[in-house]
Amino acid sequence: MTSSSVAPVGLGEIGSFDHECDVLVVGFGAAGAAAAYEAAAAGADVIVLERASGAGGSSAQSGGELYLGGGTSVQKACGFEDTPEDMYAFLEAALGPHADTEKLRLYAEGSVEHFEWFVARGVEFKPTLFTGHAWMPFTDDGLMWLGEGAWPYNTLAKPAPRGHRPAAPGFAGNVLMRELEKAVTAAGAATHTDTVAANLVLDGDRVAGLVARKFGKPVTYRARKAVIVTTGGFVDNEEMLADHAPALLGLGKVSDGLDDGSGIRMASAIGAATRRMGVVEISMTALPALVARGMLVNGRGQRFVNEDVYPGIYSTHAILEEPGPYWGIIDEEGFEDIPPGDLWQVQPKYVTETLAELEESLGMLPGSLEHTVEVYNRHAENGEDPHFHKDARWLRPLKSPFAAVDPRDGFFGSGAGKGSGAAGFTLGGLHTTVDGEVLDVSGEHIPGLYAAGRASSGMHGEGYISGTSLGDGTFFGRRAGKAAAREE
Amino acid sequence: MTSSSVAPVGLGEIGSFDHECDVLVVGFGAAGAAAAYEAAAAGADVIVLERASGAGGSSAQSGGELYLGGGTSVQKACGFEDTPEDMYAFLEAALGPHADTEKLRLYAEGSVEHFEWFVARGVEFKPTLFTGHAWMPFTDDGLMWLGEGAWPYNTLAKPAPRGHRPAAPGFAGNVLMRELEKAVTAAGAATHTDTVAANLVLDGDRVAGLVARKFGKPVTYRARKAVIVTTGGFVDNEEMLADHAPALLGLGKVSDGLDDGSGIRMASAIGAATRRMGVVEISMTALPALVARGMLVNGRGQRFVNEDVYPGIYSTHAILEEPGPYWGIIDEEGFEDIPPGDLWQVQPKYVTETLAELEESLGMLPGSLEHTVEVYNRHAENGEDPHFHKDARWLRPLKSPFAAVDPRDGFFGSGAGKGSGAAGFTLGGLHTTVDGEVLDVSGEHIPGLYAAGRASSGMHGEGYISGTSLGDGTFFGRRAGKAAAREE
Repeated sequence: MTSSSVAPVGLGEIGSFDHECDVLVVGFGAAGAAAAYEAAAAGADVIVLERASGAGGSSAQSGGELYLGGGTSVQKACGFEDTPEDMYAFLEAALGPHADTEKLRLYAEGSVEHFEWFVARGVEFKPTLFTGHAWMPFTDDGLMWLGEGAWPYNTLAKPAPRGHRPAAPGFAGNVLMRELEKAVTAAGAATHTDTVAANLVLDGDRVAGLVARKFGKPVTYRARKAVIVTTGGFVDNEEMLADHAPALLGLGKVSDGLDDGSGIRMASAIGAATRRMGVVEISMTALPALVARGMLVNGRGQRFVNEDVYPGIYSTHAILEEPGPYWGIIDEEGFEDIPPGDLWQVQPKYVTETLAELEESLGMLPGSLEHTVEVYNRHAENGEDPHFHKDARWLRPLKSPFAAVDPRDGFFGSGAGKGSGAAGFTLGGLHTTVDGEVLDVSGEHIPGLYAAGRASSGMHGEGYISGTSLGDGTFFGRRAGKAAAREE
Repeated sequence: MTSSSVAPVGLGEIGSFDHECDVLVVGFGAAGAAAAYEAAAAGADVIVLERASGAGGSSAQSGGELYLGGGTSVQKACGFEDTPEDMYAFLEAALGPHADTEKLRLYAEGSVEHFEWFVARGVEFKPTLFTGHAWMPFTDDGLMWLGEGAWPYNTLAKPAPRGHRPAAPGFAGNVLMRELEKAVTAAGAATHTDTVAANLVLDGDRVAGLVARKFGKPVTYRARKAVIVTTGGFVDNEEMLADHAPALLGLGKVSDGLDDGSGIRMASAIGAATRRMGVVEISMTALPALVARGMLVNGRGQRFVNEDVYPGIYSTHAILEEPGPYWGIIDEEGFEDIPPGDLWQVQPKYVTETLAELEESLGMLPGSLEHTVEVYNRHAENGEDPHFHKDARWLRPLKSPFAAVDPRDGFFGSGAGKGSGAAGFTLGGLHTTVDGEVLDVSGEHIPGLYAAGRASSGMHGEGYISGTSLGDGTFFGRRAGKAAAREE
């Protein structure tokens, strides 16, 4: 995808607009839906632009997890106590270092209300807990753990599961988006599909509308109050990746294929500030249930993390900081202990009687993996993991026969992530206030311009947990929608 | 340092300008000097703005190394053959991954000519090689190694030393800048000191000048041809670090204290694109001569690099990717082998008879450092380092008594880098063509706007070698100055 011009257009250059509204929302993923709903509910005349032929975006293709807590009805029904303080403390560490504490504080404090907002919009969450250890359950349980019980987070906050899932097995993002789309329409917002935003319209310093293209022809929109940019991240734009997040070059893309950063570019063209453009989330196809029962090692045969953390954390850590290739190491007993539903058809690449043979198969130096396993076993015997603090329930000395699993083989024999064994998306974007106001590089609000979702830099520092992107996109999308509707 | 407004000013808002010129260079460090010289030499009427009371900037406070090669007269006099191809191959790897190959190619091919340009400007380089292994020699030798002979670079290119140093012991940046300042003045450029650039002046889409402040009062400059931004990086701007390069928060700053990103912000305010804003260079006060003879380990007692690479590489790797604290480990024989001139008054923090005692002093798990040293010694015995490939001349089994050196103690007992033991600067900045033209986010040149030096993203990917910042700043500064002088 190559760059196209995103230079702004002056209001005077447009004779009459094809469409007018109060609030123009650009992009109909979860953030756009939340913004459009609240703006329309506040009485604004709202149009939502979507470049695809229907609502959904990357949100609809996601797992649908929403990171929510502080004492939701689902948490209570499953027998968990939780507080905004514990939720905040967990997220500050897990999304850090350098999480946005102001956004995070609001998010934790508003989380129960935000959960209820989804319920009121028709999103169903079953009050049952998924007890496996997986990227995503293939059950319709409404609640799951996302590493809250793992070290060091369990020393910072009382653990509680906060992964809230719409009632659907597997990928539930489409269920979430179906309900949000209905709510947006019911609130009175109009949706214009097959319409690609191209350039912001400026009235002096104020954003006053937008030029879009529909089937190649220009369509102009006047936004009397504001434009809200919810166009997603930029993982699908190779140029932007090279410029800002080269770590993702060559990896798979977690997106609907349309996350090309167009909104970030349109806003930057009028002097909007960006933030943390290099921060990325990476998922390796390294099976959580397997590496927790065994170990995850780098290309030197060394462990580097407690394997029971949220798998995005070990994935991002591995790809950004450890030498590859990465291997899941397990023994027969551990492999057979994996619940079939959590196995995702993963198979060992090598099985050997001795670690020396395994080292040879993996191209590791003699003694390297042997030493790692020796240290691991010696302490696991006592239920301890002094370097990395994996929880005792996963600790057991590994014994022959041993197996190595290659994340590059992917899940479900699909070759998902084949080649790199990892896929990612971007977390950096436009610099916004807690009300979604886009700041310019002088730190001033750009009048009439808002952003939310992955087109903006959200609560995240350099870490990520499932459900915090749909979560902060909708939470701050709602705030942006309300604030935009209040504009004069 | 807090944000100030960098919003552009319209040409019409300025009645008459206080000063007029063809080319206005903003910042009198090495990049600004190179740009100003070439613009003036091409016949342009040039003014250089400098916010301090004299020329120099961070360049004058630097070591003064210039990364040059391909067969300079100094290299030849010292008995080294070199080619642009070998220089390119080394830099592509050492400044990578993701080095800018187009800029790098020009730089390597133009390097001998660039060296001669410095000589013609009066910069003296002694044709002698510094044979120690240090961050910087305290001799006046004109040539030094910067890791060219270390693995894996020695497998990619024929090694040759390319660190060219002006004839001065220790920090030689002031010598370099003294000659460049003289050359700029001799070429006819005027210098306005104590003058801080504040806002670009726009004539439609074209940069037409600049509003500055001198002792608090506005001073306006009309630039008939172009403004060249050479204001340096942003390590001194805490807000920008938090937004773009949080890894440097809390570390020392390699700068003159004025690298506040003002030029990057002024240009971004008119829609200029930035590139690689998160990329940083970090220097640890871990003594090269010591860790090469012993080892550098992370907080788990593990090695992670061949310690004979350019020390910026092990420093940046350590701080960004390895768990701290970091320790230089050596034995008595190794310590006593360090030439006094390369010791920089570094002293062991702990000396013990056994590695078990050392592990206890360092708070490492029993057996961890012992294992690292056992593996190291076993292979060093055979002159091998199979994991990391340190050169055989540094390899020797370490034996009791052992010592640990803490980088946080700094060099020369000065507590330099105390606390963090590391200092850094930023490598990201404005997105420029090879002629210094600043690109907007649509990929178009912004008419009348150029940049060079650390206000721009240069040849660097995610790596760094001494002398590549003064090197690319002056090389592409010269190209920017020539191109700006050609503007209509």
